Amino acid sequence: MTGQLAIVGLGPGDPRCLTPQAAATLANASDLVGYAPYLARVPGRPNQRRHSSDNRAERERAHHAAALAASGRCVAVVSSGDAGVFAMASAVFEAIETGEPAWRALDIEVVPGISAMFAASARIGAPLGHDFCALSLSDNLKPWAVVTERLTAAASAGFVIALYNPRSRARPWQLGTAFDLLRPILPATTPVAFATAVTCPEERIDITTLGEADPELADMRTLVLIGSATTRRIDRQGMRPWLYTPRGESAS
Amino acid sequence: MTGQLAIVGLGPGDPRCLTPQAAATLANASDLVGYAPYLARVPGRPNQRRHSSDNRAERERAHHAAALAASGRCVAVVSSGDAGVFAMASAVFEAIETGEPAWRALDIEVVPGISAMFAASARIGAPLGHDFCALSLSDNLKPWAVVTERLTAAASAGFVIALYNPRSRARPWQLGTAFDLLRPILPATTPVAFATAVTCPEERIDITTLGEADPELADMRTLVLIGSATTRRIDRQGMRPWLYTPRGESAS
Repeated sequence: MTGQLAIVGLGPGDPRCLTPQAAATLANASDLVGYAPYLARVPGRPNQRRHSSDNRAERERAHHAAALAASGRCVAVVSSGDAGVFAMASAVFEAIETGEPAWRALDIEVVPGISAMFAASARIGAPLGHDFCALSLSDNLKPWAVVTERLTAAASAGFVIALYNPRSRARPWQLGTAFDLLRPILPATTPVAFATAVTCPEERIDITTLGEADPELADMRTLVLIGSATTRRIDRQGMRPWLYTPRGESAS
Repeated sequence: MTGQLAIVGLGPGDPRCLTPQAAATLANASDLVGYAPYLARVPGRPNQRRHSSDNRAERERAHHAAALAASGRCVAVVSSGDAGVFAMASAVFEAIETGEPAWRALDIEVVPGISAMFAASARIGAPLGHDFCALSLSDNLKPWAVVTERLTAAASAGFVIALYNPRSRARPWQLGTAFDLLRPILPATTPVAFATAVTCPEERIDITTLGEADPELADMRTLVLIGSATTRRIDRQGMRPWLYTPRGESAS
């Protein structure tokens, strides 16, 4: 196998968050594979082929990328944020496991990126300052009962919660139901942040509380952060408050 | 307030993982503040002051950084990995909240970095491919009972688990106890990875199972990843296996 297969995290959007390792891998690729809006973020190179696909076609895209690499190409599959977080890396390894046996001998590299969760946290303060979890609210790939079990477990045990895929046109009710599920578990004053299109020109950050959190503030580009009982809010005159979660905790 | 205060994530160690935003912030700082081995990773600049401190002096370091910024300096506090993940950002905001009221008007920026967790995940495959949590195993800042409650909750609910601070000379027993706690909850075949000094020349990755996991494989520079019941292992001839967690899950 002479081909190479890289899965590259582009970071949250701001080019200043793209690592030199990711930039070099993208520049060296003969073929770029990915969801069209993510490919559009990669500067063009002469003689580089682009293979764009729909957002939902992850399985087909992963197989296509592996097959291209097996044919000797130098392939980079692009993901937003970090490639290993609700993104393409898992789909590619699933293709490797279930596809041609020879694909296991491919030269594969995962190039990490700045995840949406950490970019959002940085803009908000340090809300992930102690133990935290990341949970996809989409029930496209797992039953809703699994989502509610994990939400309940995480909030009850005191994890800060980062919600990926909180809301889309096809999934309008899940976020409101999630807030309703958490309200008997966490204080109404628990800080909640909606971080939309983080680090992009259209970035929007809304800081509120679990008691007042309005699901309408979220769309497909939003990450929702839900504090733990110890998460603090620092108010500032004329500026957005900071949220942070102290590292230390006493017994509950 | 004319001073500036940045909290900068340096990434896991490989300079190719340092973002351009972080590099620019470090280059522009008049003062660098941090734990000495992290400061040693930042290239020197003329007329730039360095203030190094012991690893445990986080509170004093954060107050010192805020006071320097309030005096008009352009301060960068450095952390390894991402500054918001078991690192300095939370300590700095705690200093802002509890320190001089005027500090709230400081120009503060958190610059995200590639966390150890995502760098480790990338080297191993895509073990964090579905819902996951990050948990510090140190009981210096929280009671051990909180750690065990969270471990139990996370494993029982099917989260993949990233363990920060799994082991040190002063905390030799916690990781073994954590494995013992998880063994009745997860299958003995559950994949476990020890990722030490990730992306550094002395990097070491050990792939094993929960049934056979040996705490002696961990030290202060190790991140331990514990799969969920769905995490898969892809064996390869003559090479380290890949681990990944499929995105999709059926009902349990």
